[in-house]
Amino acid sequence: MNAPTPSAIKPDLLEALRALLGNRVSTSESDRAQHGRDESRHPVHLPDAVCRALSTDEVSAIVTLCATHDTPLVAYGAGSSLEGALIPVKGGVSLDLTGMNQILAVRPEDLDATVQAGVTRKQLNAHLRDTGLFFPIDPGADATIGGMAATRASGTNAVRYGTMRENVVSLTVVLADGRIIRTRSRAKKSSAGYDLTGLFVGQEGTLGIITEVTVRLYGIPEVMAAAICPFPTVEAAVTTVIQTIQMGIPISRVELMDDRAIEAVNAYSKLTLPVTPTLFFEFAGSQSAVEEQAGIVEEIARGEGATGWTWSTDADERAKLWQARHDIHWALRALRPGARGWGTDVCVPISALAEVIRAVREETSQQSFSTSLVGHVGDGNFHLGMQIDPDDPDEWARANAINDRMVKHAIALGGTCTGEHGVGIGKRKFMREEHGEAIEVMRLIKDALDPKGILNPGKVLPD
Amino acid sequence: MNAPTPSAIKPDLLEALRALLGNRVSTSESDRAQHGRDESRHPVHLPDAVCRALSTDEVSAIVTLCATHDTPLVAYGAGSSLEGALIPVKGGVSLDLTGMNQILAVRPEDLDATVQAGVTRKQLNAHLRDTGLFFPIDPGADATIGGMAATRASGTNAVRYGTMRENVVSLTVVLADGRIIRTRSRAKKSSAGYDLTGLFVGQEGTLGIITEVTVRLYGIPEVMAAAICPFPTVEAAVTTVIQTIQMGIPISRVELMDDRAIEAVNAYSKLTLPVTPTLFFEFAGSQSAVEEQAGIVEEIARGEGATGWTWSTDADERAKLWQARHDIHWALRALRPGARGWGTDVCVPISALAEVIRAVREETSQQSFSTSLVGHVGDGNFHLGMQIDPDDPDEWARANAINDRMVKHAIALGGTCTGEHGVGIGKRKFMREEHGEAIEVMRLIKDALDPKGILNPGKVLPD
Repeated sequence: MNAPTPSAIKPDLLEALRALLGNRVSTSESDRAQHGRDESRHPVHLPDAVCRALSTDEVSAIVTLCATHDTPLVAYGAGSSLEGALIPVKGGVSLDLTGMNQILAVRPEDLDATVQAGVTRKQLNAHLRDTGLFFPIDPGADATIGGMAATRASGTNAVRYGTMRENVVSLTVVLADGRIIRTRSRAKKSSAGYDLTGLFVGQEGTLGIITEVTVRLYGIPEVMAAAICPFPTVEAAVTTVIQTIQMGIPISRVELMDDRAIEAVNAYSKLTLPVTPTLFFEFAGSQSAVEEQAGIVEEIARGEGATGWTWSTDADERAKLWQARHDIHWALRALRPGARGWGTDVCVPISALAEVIRAVREETSQQSFSTSLVGHVGDGNFHLGMQIDPDDPDEWARANAINDRMVKHAIALGGTCTGEHGVGIGKRKFMREEHGEAIEVMRLIKDALDPKGILNPGKVLPD
Repeated sequence: MNAPTPSAIKPDLLEALRALLGNRVSTSESDRAQHGRDESRHPVHLPDAVCRALSTDEVSAIVTLCATHDTPLVAYGAGSSLEGALIPVKGGVSLDLTGMNQILAVRPEDLDATVQAGVTRKQLNAHLRDTGLFFPIDPGADATIGGMAATRASGTNAVRYGTMRENVVSLTVVLADGRIIRTRSRAKKSSAGYDLTGLFVGQEGTLGIITEVTVRLYGIPEVMAAAICPFPTVEAAVTTVIQTIQMGIPISRVELMDDRAIEAVNAYSKLTLPVTPTLFFEFAGSQSAVEEQAGIVEEIARGEGATGWTWSTDADERAKLWQARHDIHWALRALRPGARGWGTDVCVPISALAEVIRAVREETSQQSFSTSLVGHVGDGNFHLGMQIDPDDPDEWARANAINDRMVKHAIALGGTCTGEHGVGIGKRKFMREEHGEAIEVMRLIKDALDPKGILNPGKVLPD
């Protein structure tokens, strides 16, 4: 990890920020250290100052000051980025939005809610508890909704409810010159001009700072059921998922863990699951709908050679069935204490999923470090977890080569270098290969909206 | 209607286009007249020439030539625009893409298909007939899929399947300087950079020419059921829909017709429906799922005062139940032979729907021309149809005032000036009121991607 960079913020800017924010500006070593790292493998870089904003107007004033002083800034939420999106690689200001944690409106009739960017997904769902509604997008971390919008995040529910792309109705955004816009009305659909909501979802703070988010809500299903289902091969599991989706069965979740992931969780959580590729299902709806869905999927799975099918609608039983999936993050860490985790993700057309997974498993089978695959397999998206010795440059080099080959393979088969983790620092080098000439359109947009290049420089677009 | 503009294409450009396309370039009066009008009320403007392209490379060559000669161009598909999007108000080239009618790939495992822009929605569904799959987006006309993408079109199925925004996976686009890009991979989800697909869906040919479209497909449901349900008031019908959606019932379609629309169809199609606001439902899924859904919705409707509930799963019976909805377009025309139809649409948060409809009905109740309301009510989207005497400027002025007030009311209540018809010429004047400062972001993007302003000038953005 790099040494902390010395604070280099311009005195005039610091003075102006202090006049605006008082003690919500900090240049302390500890504040800067906290805002210089995320959950990724990428090296720490410290911001020169941390600013804590409490309103869109304050964000606008901060951005205006940074623009005047040609000083970079990057927004900070839960700190849970997996590709370095929040690391201030060019220094400048880390704009901490966690104080913007107000739920501004919940509108049950319209099935939407408006929140400040620093509200976390669990906070919103706790707030919704008595309404019978919920917000489905669930990346692993308790991320902020602003950060999730900026990353175009998703998670296990995406197979049924879509990603942040489909679930953000409208955004309030502060532009690079401090102007404030709202990207869209709250109408459910619109043909009125360019899709600015779509443009700012997934831009990782490089085109504007998201300060408020209106998201879609859904009714909590009457009944939920969980099932686990072991297969002889990854291919058989994937074929089961393809058939399930083709038949239009509205599964809530379907997750794949490979034999190595199952082995890790058996050890960590003292389970006795068969060590073989396993699908975890969740169904939701009325009692009869759930029973019918589960019956059809069991039949498909048995036809593909599934060697078991355990299911339940009871809440405690469901939690037990999914325990392996819930514990995988910790189980992987426990595989190799002291190692640094590298979680990378790709997403491919589902017809290519078994082939990409097969190739990765072959590559990783003989490594000195432990690896495992966990996938949101209904979307063709999976995560490769690698536990690397932080002091072994050879392991890092081999992990890097595995990641490179997996991503290039995914792109060659019609897929993308990241399904949900974002580009940040780590996936920039694949952007040209994936997008070709379209990268130039992204750059035209970046230059038009952020001509000084102060918004999260060094991210998303390749040099 | 305006007099035809004389052909003013530069001789050098015409010669170069002829060298490229041979007799697929036309300056004939009849070709120009066909390409100077759509299905809207907006005045005819003729292009100077019509070019018929057969490939993305040809489109690229044509755009490059037009760029060299600073000549405007606008794409032409089925000619079914309702807001003048295809009318070449500044002359130049009408780029007819109807010859690009090849279905390039259907991938049942991935539930997607790639088509050239000139393929129509019915053509694609006919091609899919034996696969068990279908493409759900259904604007009234048999529009081209390129045109539907450019307009961000939707229709009656949007309540279940979303609009073109949610159903376009990727696009091939020719930029204003002739460069060809692909907006995205075929992965189901991605966090890899800016959402160019979203940007080019709904841009109405002002940022680039869409030449190929990859769309999502869905399995044809096992069973379908239709129901019709009369209500004492529009409010009761809307409340029924709100409750249905809040409960997460996955209705396929729900359409509202007001008493005037029912009266028109009764007269035209010799039906005997009660003359009162009426909902038309469609349900889809397994037999038991459909029965369960219909049962719940009937219960909700009865609780809101519905005075009837007729339903069937039989194909012929279903068609009869929906006949009134299918015939409404012709029934409205027949109300006043010789009149010119003006169909305008707005979309509001569903909580505001009853209020906007009430105000419009009050305004239109005493007019000399006939009006009626038909709505994709599950999305908060409805169409006001007005049958205007083309030779009566006073009627036009009053229709215009009604449209203005309805749109401003929709915007004031959190809605949009158009849910699915697009901006074209007719809704430009509302764009600033709806989008505020965000219009400037749209303009920055337009200027960055089309610096010469040759792509469909005079559309979408206000002057």
